[in-house]
Amino acid sequence: MSDPAAKSIPKGTLADIGEFGLIDALRERLTTADAESRDVLLGPGDDAAVVAVASGSVVITTDVLVQGVHFRTDWAPAYDIGRRAAAASLADIAAMGARATALVVALAAPADVEVAWATKMADGLRDEAAQVGASVVGGDVARSRELSICVTALGDLEGRMPVTRSGAQVGDVVAVCGRLGWAEAGLAVLSRGFGSPRALVDAYRRPDPPYAAGIAAAVAGATAMCDVSDGLVADVGHIAAESAVGIDLRSAAFDVPEPLQAVAAAYGTNPLEWILAGGHDHAMVATFPPTADLPDGFVAVGEAVPVEDAANARVSVDGELWEQPGGHAHYR
Amino acid sequence: MSDPAAKSIPKGTLADIGEFGLIDALRERLTTADAESRDVLLGPGDDAAVVAVASGSVVITTDVLVQGVHFRTDWAPAYDIGRRAAAASLADIAAMGARATALVVALAAPADVEVAWATKMADGLRDEAAQVGASVVGGDVARSRELSICVTALGDLEGRMPVTRSGAQVGDVVAVCGRLGWAEAGLAVLSRGFGSPRALVDAYRRPDPPYAAGIAAAVAGATAMCDVSDGLVADVGHIAAESAVGIDLRSAAFDVPEPLQAVAAAYGTNPLEWILAGGHDHAMVATFPPTADLPDGFVAVGEAVPVEDAANARVSVDGELWEQPGGHAHYR
Repeated sequence: MSDPAAKSIPKGTLADIGEFGLIDALRERLTTADAESRDVLLGPGDDAAVVAVASGSVVITTDVLVQGVHFRTDWAPAYDIGRRAAAASLADIAAMGARATALVVALAAPADVEVAWATKMADGLRDEAAQVGASVVGGDVARSRELSICVTALGDLEGRMPVTRSGAQVGDVVAVCGRLGWAEAGLAVLSRGFGSPRALVDAYRRPDPPYAAGIAAAVAGATAMCDVSDGLVADVGHIAAESAVGIDLRSAAFDVPEPLQAVAAAYGTNPLEWILAGGHDHAMVATFPPTADLPDGFVAVGEAVPVEDAANARVSVDGELWEQPGGHAHYR
Repeated sequence: MSDPAAKSIPKGTLADIGEFGLIDALRERLTTADAESRDVLLGPGDDAAVVAVASGSVVITTDVLVQGVHFRTDWAPAYDIGRRAAAASLADIAAMGARATALVVALAAPADVEVAWATKMADGLRDEAAQVGASVVGGDVARSRELSICVTALGDLEGRMPVTRSGAQVGDVVAVCGRLGWAEAGLAVLSRGFGSPRALVDAYRRPDPPYAAGIAAAVAGATAMCDVSDGLVADVGHIAAESAVGIDLRSAAFDVPEPLQAVAAAYGTNPLEWILAGGHDHAMVATFPPTADLPDGFVAVGEAVPVEDAANARVSVDGELWEQPGGHAHYR
């Protein structure tokens, strides 16, 4: 197996090496022994890639991350930005109950970006994908004034039905797996110009989605699922709306980890707001029949409840409608 | 069947309707009767979409188009920009010999973009995809300072082998299908501030890739193929390099259409430069065994020839190395 870290990185900027030099440099970084996996029938370098799909259907999701909106190059190293860009799409695949197989990536970048930035970002993409056994099979690069990364991921349901947002039933248990509020608290720390607590800053820079929990939830009979990218209340709101149920969360069910307590105290914030409305952690939230055994790592945090008006399915906390800031949305 | 054109478009800018208002507006435009096609198992609105793959493998390609680089909103209406964005990826799928099934689209756009611009762009995406029976199955929107559109397309090989860039053999016939130089000439017209000849300007605004020719070439036994997006010499250069052959083009084989002749004469340009180096038309270029019957629409324009040094496989025109401007590349 080649060691990508040992490969030399061309010096200078994208303008110095040009489009095809950049493509060569990125392809070299992205090629790993895993690219010979059974999922990749034709890898990078042609008009398109070919990915095996054993089960008769393929899951696909796309996410674009924009400099200054989703990431800041002064707040996270290129490697972490690459991991985060891959995680956003890989978590969506997991949230359908699927196994991620392949990524394609479009990088739009100004000419004065350093080649080393782009290759380290590619290292991050590659390593995050490798966590779930997926590889980067293709991509595109373009000159732009603003840095952005568009990641599209493919997944294989392996014969399972996709777990959508629309299957929750009244009486279902609402359960979460993974960190909540950590990334938002990390962002609050960075926004104030600080670099610690490191655990929170790192949680923002490099989310740790519980990928295996997505498949485990599907196997355990989850009736609905999504990943928490915009904030728990906002994202279970999608399940509520699509399933035409209400969702009531119990605030006492949420453990408030020590670093969140400490920073919230210092900033005069209620840490529950980060937990309920903070985005970027890519936890999994799912609904399960009341009789189901919750998979390892899932914690029950609420219940699907009846609604009088299906068009106004809402999320409540301890029986009260949630009126706090409602998670991340663009153009607000 | 609903008539998308009859749906009302929210007035104002993206900032006025917000992320979820924009998503709703786009989803409404993108939903057609075709979205109920056999290829789409789960359409827009969840963490990911699910697309049928009957043949055991899926073809995937991604392209990002950036305002001011790949398109200019003052040079083409939103609808044409959407068609063009879809065409770039759909042509790549065709160039593998595959049938396109689905698109996902990530739109990064400033808050002051009009909703009507975004929905008309989506109309263009939808209609270009519909030309080949594909649908838009998902997407993402994000706030940005610079407008960009990232389109990822999926395709089905229907049991055929992918036609890569690496299979050309010495003695193969090189043949093209589709327009060459029209879009580049149209760009030259627009760059000088003119709007006619309309045929050339329209060719730039809305390419007309010969999608069916990709599958026809695969069925006819094409040994290598790619779409002409960067310019014919540049793109057959990829086939030459990957196949370790030389490619000699015959200039007399290229018909110079009347509008190209007229504009070239007016601008003091050799129209052959547009034909050989002009990008954006998304013609198909393929190599065929000398015994193959060329599919309808393909015209023989050259031959794969031996090279002494496989690492320096080159493209020549009439036996001379091509030293003219070599097609489109970023960061030059």
